[in-house]
Amino acid sequence: KLMNNEILNRAADNIRILSASMVEKAKSGHPGGAMGGADFINLLYTEFLNYDPKDPRWINRDRFFMDPGHMSPMLYSQLHMLGHYSMEDLKNFRQWGSPTPGHPEVDLDRGVENTSGPLGQGHAMAVGAAIAERFLVARFGEWMAHKTYAFISDGGIQEEISQGAGRIAGHLGLGNLIMFYDANDIQLSTEVDEVTSEDVAKKYEAWNWHVVTVEGNNVEALREALVAANADDRPSLIIGKTIMGKGAVTAEGESFERKVSTHGQPLTAAGASLDKTIENLGGDAANPFVVFEDVAAFYAKVLEEKADYASEKKAAQAEWAKAHPELAAKLEQFFSGEATAINWESIEQKQGVATRAASATVLGHLAENVENMIVSSADLSNSDKTDGFLKKTTVLKKGDFSGAFLQAGVCEFTMAVIANGIALHGGVQVAVATFFVFSDYMKPAFRLSALMGLPVKYIWTHDAFRVGEDGPTHQPIEQEAQIRLMEKLKNHHGDMSLLALRPADADETTVAWKMAMENTKTPTALIFSRQNIKSQVSYTEALGAERGAYIVKDVENPDVILVASGSEVATLADGAGKLEADGLKVRIVSAPSEGLFRTQDKAYQQAVLPTNVPTFGMTAGLPVTLEGLVGPFGKVFGLDHFGYSAPAGVLDEKFGFTGENVVKQVTEYLAEVKA
Amino acid sequence: KLMNNEILNRAADNIRILSASMVEKAKSGHPGGAMGGADFINLLYTEFLNYDPKDPRWINRDRFFMDPGHMSPMLYSQLHMLGHYSMEDLKNFRQWGSPTPGHPEVDLDRGVENTSGPLGQGHAMAVGAAIAERFLVARFGEWMAHKTYAFISDGGIQEEISQGAGRIAGHLGLGNLIMFYDANDIQLSTEVDEVTSEDVAKKYEAWNWHVVTVEGNNVEALREALVAANADDRPSLIIGKTIMGKGAVTAEGESFERKVSTHGQPLTAAGASLDKTIENLGGDAANPFVVFEDVAAFYAKVLEEKADYASEKKAAQAEWAKAHPELAAKLEQFFSGEATAINWESIEQKQGVATRAASATVLGHLAENVENMIVSSADLSNSDKTDGFLKKTTVLKKGDFSGAFLQAGVCEFTMAVIANGIALHGGVQVAVATFFVFSDYMKPAFRLSALMGLPVKYIWTHDAFRVGEDGPTHQPIEQEAQIRLMEKLKNHHGDMSLLALRPADADETTVAWKMAMENTKTPTALIFSRQNIKSQVSYTEALGAERGAYIVKDVENPDVILVASGSEVATLADGAGKLEADGLKVRIVSAPSEGLFRTQDKAYQQAVLPTNVPTFGMTAGLPVTLEGLVGPFGKVFGLDHFGYSAPAGVLDEKFGFTGENVVKQVTEYLAEVKA
Repeated sequence: KLMNNEILNRAADNIRILSASMVEKAKSGHPGGAMGGADFINLLYTEFLNYDPKDPRWINRDRFFMDPGHMSPMLYSQLHMLGHYSMEDLKNFRQWGSPTPGHPEVDLDRGVENTSGPLGQGHAMAVGAAIAERFLVARFGEWMAHKTYAFISDGGIQEEISQGAGRIAGHLGLGNLIMFYDANDIQLSTEVDEVTSEDVAKKYEAWNWHVVTVEGNNVEALREALVAANADDRPSLIIGKTIMGKGAVTAEGESFERKVSTHGQPLTAAGASLDKTIENLGGDAANPFVVFEDVAAFYAKVLEEKADYASEKKAAQAEWAKAHPELAAKLEQFFSGEATAINWESIEQKQGVATRAASATVLGHLAENVENMIVSSADLSNSDKTDGFLKKTTVLKKGDFSGAFLQAGVCEFTMAVIANGIALHGGVQVAVATFFVFSDYMKPAFRLSALMGLPVKYIWTHDAFRVGEDGPTHQPIEQEAQIRLMEKLKNHHGDMSLLALRPADADETTVAWKMAMENTKTPTALIFSRQNIKSQVSYTEALGAERGAYIVKDVENPDVILVASGSEVATLADGAGKLEADGLKVRIVSAPSEGLFRTQDKAYQQAVLPTNVPTFGMTAGLPVTLEGLVGPFGKVFGLDHFGYSAPAGVLDEKFGFTGENVVKQVTEYLAEVKA
Repeated sequence: KLMNNEILNRAADNIRILSASMVEKAKSGHPGGAMGGADFINLLYTEFLNYDPKDPRWINRDRFFMDPGHMSPMLYSQLHMLGHYSMEDLKNFRQWGSPTPGHPEVDLDRGVENTSGPLGQGHAMAVGAAIAERFLVARFGEWMAHKTYAFISDGGIQEEISQGAGRIAGHLGLGNLIMFYDANDIQLSTEVDEVTSEDVAKKYEAWNWHVVTVEGNNVEALREALVAANADDRPSLIIGKTIMGKGAVTAEGESFERKVSTHGQPLTAAGASLDKTIENLGGDAANPFVVFEDVAAFYAKVLEEKADYASEKKAAQAEWAKAHPELAAKLEQFFSGEATAINWESIEQKQGVATRAASATVLGHLAENVENMIVSSADLSNSDKTDGFLKKTTVLKKGDFSGAFLQAGVCEFTMAVIANGIALHGGVQVAVATFFVFSDYMKPAFRLSALMGLPVKYIWTHDAFRVGEDGPTHQPIEQEAQIRLMEKLKNHHGDMSLLALRPADADETTVAWKMAMENTKTPTALIFSRQNIKSQVSYTEALGAERGAYIVKDVENPDVILVASGSEVATLADGAGKLEADGLKVRIVSAPSEGLFRTQDKAYQQAVLPTNVPTFGMTAGLPVTLEGLVGPFGKVFGLDHFGYSAPAGVLDEKFGFTGENVVKQVTEYLAEVKA
């Protein structure tokens, strides 16, 4: 054992050298933390984490989630030991086209489980992965159990989301979650005690976690802590008191450890000597990008053991699959990431209801037909109507993950990040719900869904000022325009990074859900009304939504085209009736997703919204929400101010969202066009 | 004392009746919580809170911050007892034009200290107010000390922001902050224990708070707790185990307390009897909107006492003012809310620097010339360059508020909400800083700054993909378009709800800061570059920024106009030089704020960006960021995808943000225009 500790320390020193050298070569990055955390990650990957070095996507691998993405040199150096990164990749750290960006981006084939950088999100994703694991184990058996490890730093501990992640993990009793807190007493701009004096251990104990505090660079102490954590049935926090910049020395050979200055710049820029540091750590300053021979030999053996263990587990799985072919097929389908086959047409919608109610109908169908879906609400299940799902299942709770509904409590952001973690784990589909105005709280989460290409479904109800009496704090105005910015932003695959759908009525809601469930590559936002809406289309007609925008009601040679999304389509239709009575020829277009519409061929776009016909848009959001659709000569009637507290019908009148005002506005607009 | 408790209980019952009746009449709202919290708020406003009923803006009043805005009926009923709302106002709860919106909106003349509704923000604003109080006391003396009370519910306790607020209040030792946690075991969609099992008391103790748990409807116990809290030098949490819907009964007279159903709908809709409940609480069901005679008499006496106490304090202040005329004048200036006189022209900027560095120069000047300004950074002071301010002051710390810099730690959202609280307190100006991409985390906070009209300054640096090596998680792309949506949204006064400025160079940065400091009515976003920028204008020329957009370089009858904000102006200028060498006549326009530009008279707008001259825009954000400025025939070169990790200069080349590409793009555009 002692000999083993020696080689472990040497391997950790090797990771320190690689990390410091990568940052030095890149001329930017964060060496200090990486050098402090090396002992833990090295021990974890050698003695605890189960993985198959040859098959990084093995579904039953333990998961490792990084929270502090700026410590990426440590992760890449570690994964170099596993063979997932070449020495060339390490040398090209932070360079164009290299697989070693400044902050890690999810790359399952290389063992990177999550994109990180925005502090706090990484460990909350780990909570999601741990939930997914328990969900699957409840359905397929303990044979597929695995652990989820998270690595967090002072920043993540301080981030607000730690409250949601800590509370939920404790409440659900996620004994499969083990988190290492790299507590080096240093953060980017100051020492930690300058900004905080909380008792972290006590706080996590208040959340029902198992907590131990150990010397974070002592392999024996870390091992003991990991063994204890693996045995505990609560989520575990190992507080490792690590040494920032461990091993760093000056040109004179004096210690340069525990310095704020080594947090965010190369060692030499901070005042240390890289060469002396490398030597101090047992390396060759002239040749820093190497793995020591004894370390290489050690890792060769480790990887063999890991592969052997994975083989055994896979053999056991094969046995199980043989004994349970139906379950095995189901498991395969779950992990395929492909959309579940759903008989969408069979979903009968009550007409004239709020789209949130229509969504509840769909969710009821999904609860019965999609066995691997978790739906969550931030304490609004009876308002956002995810109770349509909840009524046909039960809530996830400590010791019982047979249900499929997560009552997240009031923590919109954490809920969304947990959803990202569930999606990253694989095998489970996930939807999260709250009021549309609170999508603001979730932006940092869905930006990462978009960047990672995770098919999380965001259900946002109460979609406009028609929230009514709850007033301006609860009335989204700018939010639709805001979310559609993500439709304009492409992900690394060149795809629209997020699909945002605001359906016009009950059956279009079914189609929106169809599109969301079939969109397995990017997140989907579903934006629903609180108030009832007069139905406009049949299910078959509503399939036009699959092209982003489509003609709901047509006429030959229209005098004017009316376009909207959501409930404003019905308002336009109301106005159109009156305009037609006056002899005007009116086309109505429903545009649940401008972004998707703009990916259609030009001929289709021109057929639906020809540039040479006057086009009038109505939106309960900022006018800019529709300006791209009506074109340069069109006109948009929208809202350019915060809402007010009053019954929705009163606000409709006051703000001009009535058929009468459509007539007035369109008439004025057409007069302007003619003039 | 016992007799006093009897009348207090009767007054609380009166508040319960009014609250339940308001919700019933409005046909929507939240009666249960209001009925449970009535005992506390009534006791607070009678025996503890210091205020002047005739002068609600008295600067040394104790502050009361509501967190759960949905409990507004309780607040309005309480403030009716103070004479700030008429019975008619209560009857018009949640109606158009009434001063009693569904969620309270800041209204100092009526005793409403903050807008609330988005859970968690209210109590974090209280932390800000408590900081402002300590800051002012450090400068003017303990004579002006006052307490800040906060009222929080289960939702606020669960919200992520509780982590930031709890940690910071504890770290700063805010003994002037007393928070009541209305713990009624019920939340909107479930009982609390279904979603959480954290030990709240232990958690706050981990944050160094003084915590007591009491029966929340027992006036004697509440009084004891409030006395102890007032005596403790730590922030205090009083956990009041209250009874949801206290006093509610069915038609049969059976208890209807502790029901989830009374959280968010009228009592009758939940299944209780309003009439029987009113009778049970000692009221007249036929006439619910009254204050009992004995309660009215009691409050008359209370208000007299409050007024007397305030008079005494004001007399003491007058004495102090006489003895310290200069300090008194300063205090008055601080609370005037007017901009501090600054010699902006005297600020010498080094040319060719990053605008974050230019901002640091301004901040250094402000540190020396604005005595009532707090600047805060979320652990990035050395990157966002608020250290320009920090270097000339010290950090706020427990027991020493003589400094003016708040090291918030890694909690962007909490920091912003605290800033709102500082601004609400009055007397103190405030700026908060982080990276621009993390403005996403602060959206819910600056939306409330915008709605409340608070002049918080948001400093956002690292404004584009030129963040470089840190990669896509740290590179804002859609954020400029996103923040400008708030420029399109008007507040309740009809003003642009937020001013967003992205200056083009060092001297324009000085002007941007001038505009921010002179904008005392709405929040201002200041968006700065990480990288150096070649200077374009002198300070005097840069004053053109005060009109939102202005001509940086003109020529008679331009062939093309180039427009941008931020560092893209310099890139355009680089390209313009080459275009001019080819004989083209080029005008360059810097547009630090499109929103402000669109409020200028049409003649000015037409003079700067005439619609009949080809206009080319370049933005490091989404093309839509500039589409409104170039007009229907213009062209925008922007980015439509996430960034990548690489040195900034490499990204400039790869993404086409070079003078050469300006030439190429403009040439192609002009060819298209001619065709």
